[in-house]
Amino acid sequence: MTGAGRRKADGSSTRGQPVNGARALLRTLVNSDVDVCFANPGTSEMHFIAALDDVPEMRTVLGLFEGVATGAADGYARITGRPAATLLHLGPGMANGMANLHNARRARSPMVNIVGEHATYHRVHDTPLTSDIETVAGTFSNWVRTPQRTADLGPAAADAVVAAMGPPAGIATLVLPADVSWGDGGRAEPPAPRRAPATVASDDVRRIAKLLDSGERVTFLLGGSATRAEALRCASRIREATGASVLTETSLARLERGGGLPVVDRLNYRGGAALRQLAGTRHLVLVDARPPVAFFAYPGRPSVLTPEDSEVHVLATAGDDVAGALAELADLVAPGVAAVPGPVRPRAERDAELPTGPLTAAAIGAAVAALLPDGAIVVDEGVTSGGHVQQALTDGPRHDWLNVTGGAIGIGLPLAVGAAIGAPDRRVLGLQADGSTMYTIQGLWTMARENLDITTIVFANREYGILRGELARVGATAGPRALDLLDLGRPDLDFVALATGMGVAAERATTAEHFTAALRRALAGSGPRLVEAVL
Amino acid sequence: MTGAGRRKADGSSTRGQPVNGARALLRTLVNSDVDVCFANPGTSEMHFIAALDDVPEMRTVLGLFEGVATGAADGYARITGRPAATLLHLGPGMANGMANLHNARRARSPMVNIVGEHATYHRVHDTPLTSDIETVAGTFSNWVRTPQRTADLGPAAADAVVAAMGPPAGIATLVLPADVSWGDGGRAEPPAPRRAPATVASDDVRRIAKLLDSGERVTFLLGGSATRAEALRCASRIREATGASVLTETSLARLERGGGLPVVDRLNYRGGAALRQLAGTRHLVLVDARPPVAFFAYPGRPSVLTPEDSEVHVLATAGDDVAGALAELADLVAPGVAAVPGPVRPRAERDAELPTGPLTAAAIGAAVAALLPDGAIVVDEGVTSGGHVQQALTDGPRHDWLNVTGGAIGIGLPLAVGAAIGAPDRRVLGLQADGSTMYTIQGLWTMARENLDITTIVFANREYGILRGELARVGATAGPRALDLLDLGRPDLDFVALATGMGVAAERATTAEHFTAALRRALAGSGPRLVEAVL
Repeated sequence: MTGAGRRKADGSSTRGQPVNGARALLRTLVNSDVDVCFANPGTSEMHFIAALDDVPEMRTVLGLFEGVATGAADGYARITGRPAATLLHLGPGMANGMANLHNARRARSPMVNIVGEHATYHRVHDTPLTSDIETVAGTFSNWVRTPQRTADLGPAAADAVVAAMGPPAGIATLVLPADVSWGDGGRAEPPAPRRAPATVASDDVRRIAKLLDSGERVTFLLGGSATRAEALRCASRIREATGASVLTETSLARLERGGGLPVVDRLNYRGGAALRQLAGTRHLVLVDARPPVAFFAYPGRPSVLTPEDSEVHVLATAGDDVAGALAELADLVAPGVAAVPGPVRPRAERDAELPTGPLTAAAIGAAVAALLPDGAIVVDEGVTSGGHVQQALTDGPRHDWLNVTGGAIGIGLPLAVGAAIGAPDRRVLGLQADGSTMYTIQGLWTMARENLDITTIVFANREYGILRGELARVGATAGPRALDLLDLGRPDLDFVALATGMGVAAERATTAEHFTAALRRALAGSGPRLVEAVL
Repeated sequence: MTGAGRRKADGSSTRGQPVNGARALLRTLVNSDVDVCFANPGTSEMHFIAALDDVPEMRTVLGLFEGVATGAADGYARITGRPAATLLHLGPGMANGMANLHNARRARSPMVNIVGEHATYHRVHDTPLTSDIETVAGTFSNWVRTPQRTADLGPAAADAVVAAMGPPAGIATLVLPADVSWGDGGRAEPPAPRRAPATVASDDVRRIAKLLDSGERVTFLLGGSATRAEALRCASRIREATGASVLTETSLARLERGGGLPVVDRLNYRGGAALRQLAGTRHLVLVDARPPVAFFAYPGRPSVLTPEDSEVHVLATAGDDVAGALAELADLVAPGVAAVPGPVRPRAERDAELPTGPLTAAAIGAAVAALLPDGAIVVDEGVTSGGHVQQALTDGPRHDWLNVTGGAIGIGLPLAVGAAIGAPDRRVLGLQADGSTMYTIQGLWTMARENLDITTIVFANREYGILRGELARVGATAGPRALDLLDLGRPDLDFVALATGMGVAAERATTAEHFTAALRRALAGSGPRLVEAVL
């Protein structure tokens, strides 16, 4: 411990003695319970790095590419509910992490970006690494600040954490000029006061309750924090008591499921199927969710998926006490009614029916459902193949399911890294498409470096499979030159070699038996492993 | 050939028949001599992809990550002087390519980005993949446009090429809404009129000539297009006749050197060394260059490197006829004086002195100088190790030397891809640091897919070596936790496995003899190879 701020016994903190900016920043972050930093540093961040030895409570995790750092911070936030910091090297470093910052924004994950910047007096020279950091950061952040004096850094860091936590949670980007970091006169700050979620007015809850009395079909659409266990149980009670339908949004930051939790279907990614799920709905009630819209536009198909003769209502938004509003509604319309537990298939039964023969996505789903330990975290970037596993796990052990929330692929491996750092006692299973894996393949190295208990399954179909479907859906006729751009098999990617090259043990499976054995080995050992499933 | 525009015998083109937007766009690009597209497509770009079979003159090159596409377009532009197109998937795809777009902006490389976007009527729904593309593109582009109607697409594409070509050249970003792409009523356009470079006024040239008569020390600083053969010869004539000093900027888009071209030193990356190179200069003459400034700020060291008692003059800027201005000046102050050729060491002499024993950066430089074929292109992302090779090649065969221009590492492999596509008859040698290689390691796969004659040398020192030096330079004391963040050796990266996993033949060298043999094999064969040089 240095003199730069220390936590008091009651958990509060005092302002510290004057130190340099970097130490004040780090100590303030730790004071505010931000104690993990996913980093890919450069010269302008060297004082921050040097200060790490003075603030040992801050754990740093190195990524070989910034998209690993930002995606990991997202995964950490989804699992812990707390922001991690990232450390990024000027504008280009932030740009490299930006696709996953986009995903994190859509996941409403709390995060504190520290983006290194030239010294305040150096920027004017427009040197090679200079770019417009604030303008770019403004497109994905809900808070951006560039302190100009070292004394401002501690308060800025405390404010950044509060801005990130919300609610609603989001990305706070603190741009750190090098001289502000190395300058003297910084002070560690105690945590700034946190915002409380807004309580949904009881009148608004009763208004929704009345809809459920109307005899017209009501569908609840759950998103954000409404896909966690307690909220799902409330939704189940409401469904049981009133006959309302309940769906979740398509891409969820974190869905708790399995282990007897109530089962709630997802709104389908395909617009046509989603329209069928919503058909007949007269009242659509959004619970920390947004009105359903097609992911992409297609010629001649609707963008808006809300049935034309329906009304949209809002029970709670991201800034509200979402679980509280659902609980109040459940107590109102379903007093004494219990949630309906989802089915749980005995593990012994599954074990006896382990798949054999050709390796398919369905076989992989069956094997995963049989072998996944309780309390696992599943990261789904399987694109065309992940759904089979999700289906198989519906009556499986309790687990969290993490989606790509912003449609930017290349988050799967980083998300797994962050989830594993955030929950070291839980097993993480990554479902990856071959195409998506390649975007941030560097994440494997961080898994090895931190010896994380992550099992990665790569569905190797050797094409951008989803795009073949999309080509047809947009009504385009595909010739050989078009199809060649969707083909990943020239040359084939060897994921065993790629994983091994980054220190992750790996094997390739071409039959269901081999896959099951490989998965069993991977889940039994400690540290990361990869299984390339050739489909 | 479709009906959508065709080149006439005299090279001009006529407007084509109505076609869909994607075809009009592709045909217009080809009409304007943009006939290579580095692509990583998604759903919103499917009509563009489908149209490729109608416009076979457009060559597409697939990357597994957008940073490969944008860095390759930069390399292509630096070698051919012409823009390539990129095809990027909405905001996150552009973000993934953005660090190399930053480098390309600093290289003043012409480039036409095609960034897919949601249909015009779909954007309002703020679906998961929606982001503010135009605002972000504005930070690195000198031209941004989002056509709202299919009829506007052909003219926009023609304008984009002109904007990219300049002079000064730069990045044009055309945002392509899906419905504008799939809509009917597009027409292929002929090339738009190109801008001519501005002629530097003879009075301004004579003003510089007078400085050379003053008896005071004059230093020319060359950048941009002033580092090409003809400009270097003019600079050599001026130096020979007047005794002026000549330097190039530190990070150059393309320096022609070797094979007897006049030798011109680079301004050192280290501020202190640069100050010594410039000491005594009374008049600093910028030739398509910027006033010298330290790359980073350091505590207590100057940002501005121009000597305090010197005057800065401008002979020509990027929008000017730079070579013409230099030639005019040379004819004025050095009539009848020839350029002084640089030394060329006979290859036989080098062959006889091939290095033996421990593998060092110097040994690698000697081996490269002995074995590199004439007319090669060298891409330097060797960070702490590339300088040795550059030094050794000073009296080597003729070659082009390409630097990282914007300080954003992760461009080396992509730059090599683009250079090889642009100059299929030339050998490309990539000098890579282990850390820098990992940022866009996916570039190896494109080398294999396109069977490009690229030899990649990875200097594996297993650390962020440059940052160890920077840590000391910023005056920071490094403890074990700081140093751990600069260490890439936990676990070691196996570049042979990584390359093999992407279809690139590779071997590891640990002695000078082994390295020389491996390099010889790599340069003798066709297609890509990688040599991991363990230092």
